[in-house]
Amino acid sequence: MSAHLDFEKANEKYVAGFGDRAHLPIHPGKKLAVVTCMDARLNVFGHLGIKEGEAHIIRNAGGAAKDALRSIIISQRLLGTREIAVFHHTACGMLTFSTPQLRTLVKESDPTNVALNAVDDVDFLEFGDLEKSVREDVTFLRENPLVLPETKITGWVYEVETGKVRQIV
Amino acid sequence: MSAHLDFEKANEKYVAGFGDRAHLPIHPGKKLAVVTCMDARLNVFGHLGIKEGEAHIIRNAGGAAKDALRSIIISQRLLGTREIAVFHHTACGMLTFSTPQLRTLVKESDPTNVALNAVDDVDFLEFGDLEKSVREDVTFLRENPLVLPETKITGWVYEVETGKVRQIV
Repeated sequence: MSAHLDFEKANEKYVAGFGDRAHLPIHPGKKLAVVTCMDARLNVFGHLGIKEGEAHIIRNAGGAAKDALRSIIISQRLLGTREIAVFHHTACGMLTFSTPQLRTLVKESDPTNVALNAVDDVDFLEFGDLEKSVREDVTFLRENPLVLPETKITGWVYEVETGKVRQIV
Repeated sequence: MSAHLDFEKANEKYVAGFGDRAHLPIHPGKKLAVVTCMDARLNVFGHLGIKEGEAHIIRNAGGAAKDALRSIIISQRLLGTREIAVFHHTACGMLTFSTPQLRTLVKESDPTNVALNAVDDVDFLEFGDLEKSVREDVTFLRENPLVLPETKITGWVYEVETGKVRQIV
């Protein structure tokens, strides 16, 4: 396990082409925050045509809006974003398990380790229906008092089989 | 506010070059999870030379490890990652405010709206010292019982002024 040993060499290429990116402001140019999954197959800059400086990218398991709330408040109140696009994706790991199952898996991996009971406090925010989960996350954000009421919020599916994005709401 | 109107057109280009990415497995090829900030200036695939299929990318305000724990458990237990690289970055918004300040800002934006008191339950996980914050997040993960003990964990700074990455721990 030493993927990090490749970082510095790969980084040299990026630095060599860095150009005027040094002067990008901290405020996202498109006033946009994207919420999406951590999934390894998702190249957010690539599939949305986003460039450095344009948008906050919030990624977690599933692209869960609830898990992104802290970041969204900072994004809106301190850094001026006024639009949120929520993406979930096909063949997501979040469609394959339940919180009780994962809690059991963790605790049974080392049954004598009582510290693992801490997993009972974690809600893994899995979902059973992809498009419904997008609609629910958009509703969560639209109804949350800590999200600015003037925010434009859309919900999308990314298809890992085709690279396509599809608007749901 | 209509950045999302550009998504479908930009996406057509990505789809046209999608090639054999349709066959990428869900398990990250490098068994790596990267935790980093949502900051708009960060092009994670670019500055680390990562490609689709290689690594989970978890992004939130600051690149806070605590906020990433739910995702990390899923990444390790269900999808096989065994390495975590935590990145924080120079000129981060998290260096510029405190949780009490942001709570006040939110509540004073609409003083008659009692629903905004919900912000008092949010810990914004800001930090005052960049390199110390990286060390603390690596320690948090190394000591957390829900992170697999065999995990290789490194901590890094990304420099928005140069595009360079620098290992701290």
